[in-house]
Amino acid sequence: MTKTISIKDINEASNRINGIINKTPILTSSFIDNLSGSNLFFKCENFQKVGAFKFRGASNVLSLLNKESIKKGVATHSSGNHAQALALAAKNYGVPAYIVMPQNAPKVKVNAVMAYKAKITFCEANLKAREETLKEIIQETNATFVHPYNDFDIIAGQGTASLELLKEVPDLDIIISPIGGGGLCSGTLIYSKEHKPSLKVYGAEPSGASDAKKSLALGELQPSINPKTICDGLLTSLGDKTFSIISHYIDDILLVDDNEIISAMKLIWERMKIIVEPSSATVLAVVLKYPEHFQSKKIGLILSGGNVDLNNLPWSQC
Amino acid sequence: MTKTISIKDINEASNRINGIINKTPILTSSFIDNLSGSNLFFKCENFQKVGAFKFRGASNVLSLLNKESIKKGVATHSSGNHAQALALAAKNYGVPAYIVMPQNAPKVKVNAVMAYKAKITFCEANLKAREETLKEIIQETNATFVHPYNDFDIIAGQGTASLELLKEVPDLDIIISPIGGGGLCSGTLIYSKEHKPSLKVYGAEPSGASDAKKSLALGELQPSINPKTICDGLLTSLGDKTFSIISHYIDDILLVDDNEIISAMKLIWERMKIIVEPSSATVLAVVLKYPEHFQSKKIGLILSGGNVDLNNLPWSQC
Repeated sequence: MTKTISIKDINEASNRINGIINKTPILTSSFIDNLSGSNLFFKCENFQKVGAFKFRGASNVLSLLNKESIKKGVATHSSGNHAQALALAAKNYGVPAYIVMPQNAPKVKVNAVMAYKAKITFCEANLKAREETLKEIIQETNATFVHPYNDFDIIAGQGTASLELLKEVPDLDIIISPIGGGGLCSGTLIYSKEHKPSLKVYGAEPSGASDAKKSLALGELQPSINPKTICDGLLTSLGDKTFSIISHYIDDILLVDDNEIISAMKLIWERMKIIVEPSSATVLAVVLKYPEHFQSKKIGLILSGGNVDLNNLPWSQC
Repeated sequence: MTKTISIKDINEASNRINGIINKTPILTSSFIDNLSGSNLFFKCENFQKVGAFKFRGASNVLSLLNKESIKKGVATHSSGNHAQALALAAKNYGVPAYIVMPQNAPKVKVNAVMAYKAKITFCEANLKAREETLKEIIQETNATFVHPYNDFDIIAGQGTASLELLKEVPDLDIIISPIGGGGLCSGTLIYSKEHKPSLKVYGAEPSGASDAKKSLALGELQPSINPKTICDGLLTSLGDKTFSIISHYIDDILLVDDNEIISAMKLIWERMKIIVEPSSATVLAVVLKYPEHFQSKKIGLILSGGNVDLNNLPWSQC
């Protein structure tokens, strides 16, 4: 692997974005510890600004732009947490965020991005239309394109969650991160493996969107075709940068089914009294499904976010 | 008022139960601050053991029993959070908890109490049957009866939540506590008013179970007849001890309707990503309904608990 960022970039990112991001709490549950036979430390990025870890990476990108570039703003196409994160990060710097969204994006997500004063452009609901619309906007505005995960500054920002986790609980044996596009997992790996090489890092991936597992097995990128999982944050496939980092460092990727993810999610809600989205619950689902890796270990679990539609919960009978 | 406990009892309770209870976090939300025009500090007793503040009072009672009494155990009739709290507090001391429950108690509540190894006796679902069954058990076992709220040692235990809150945020102007039987509110009042007499304390009560408001207006106990509210923790009426403390100290009791409570509850879930029960949400509903009391103030809100049936949420359309 040609390494292009290191633990140094994550340390510097942390220094820059401290005070902008929430330093999220680390929670424990004696009930879930007993159930799993391990000692779990939940890093609560559901309490991060915009309700997800994505605000770390977005804030880091903004903090690195030079005076000329930052004035022109930032741009992306996304209907998810990255759009909100970039919008708020830009708002904090008083610069524009241009967000391209499909015209069928859920109203709740459009409203969330609008609340952060982003300039939204709607387009047809396909990748080609999104990319072309974004290209036009960037030509017009000279805004900086910010990819949601396949970007080293984004990855460095996401790595700060593990930095905080290991500062507070230095003697962890294992960290588990969800894998979607791989930004959070890549940042987790670089920080954890360079800070403490003996630490094991696992990725938690939904069986219905298992491009990372397949890509690692084959040694080349295998983007998902029609992925299907309740984890709306994990539908994306790895990019070349995240694939390179993950295949270099990761101990293993463990797959979990949607019903296992939903059970783990409900367990977290019931026992920890916190709201996490399905993507977050993958990490606990992995611990419960593969006890052979985790018994009696001290494990950090990164809960990636808490943005769920409370009117449409996966266990409701409606 | 004949004062029978003081801030000294709460300080001592805190010293005894420290390390047994969870020192719960205090959370903030810039979104809800903006919305309300005030500065809110949420004391999260939903993260307390058994999911509610009740564990503070129950642990304090156990910590005060002498060697002879404690061996015989404790007893109560309850199907709610008090039963779980007493069961776990007794389990921590390795002594029996005898809980009388109505035979129609929800299975989820029975299971929760059983999980703490309490000895459950079922009876008919009326107050007379509950009291008689409890009396028989106490005659048989010589266990100590622990009332859920009309008990000075319970009240002293509940007051430790405000002690922690004011230790961490000393410059609060106001504290708001829910009012059901009045144990939490009484403990809050004694600690807050004796520690910092200038602090205002309000009670938040559901309109459909407003016995405390009525009792204060008339100057004598007016137990609720057929109270009706979504706040299952606030259906009970004040007792003589809690009435005496509350009428002596409280600044006012403010009423909120169930629809206002449900909106506030959803707002907490969505924006703070924590799970609170309807009773907890009364305190925020009060802030949003009566801005004239709260604008620009620094306010402590006691979130009493987080035990809700996730399959039956008040805003679900099922």
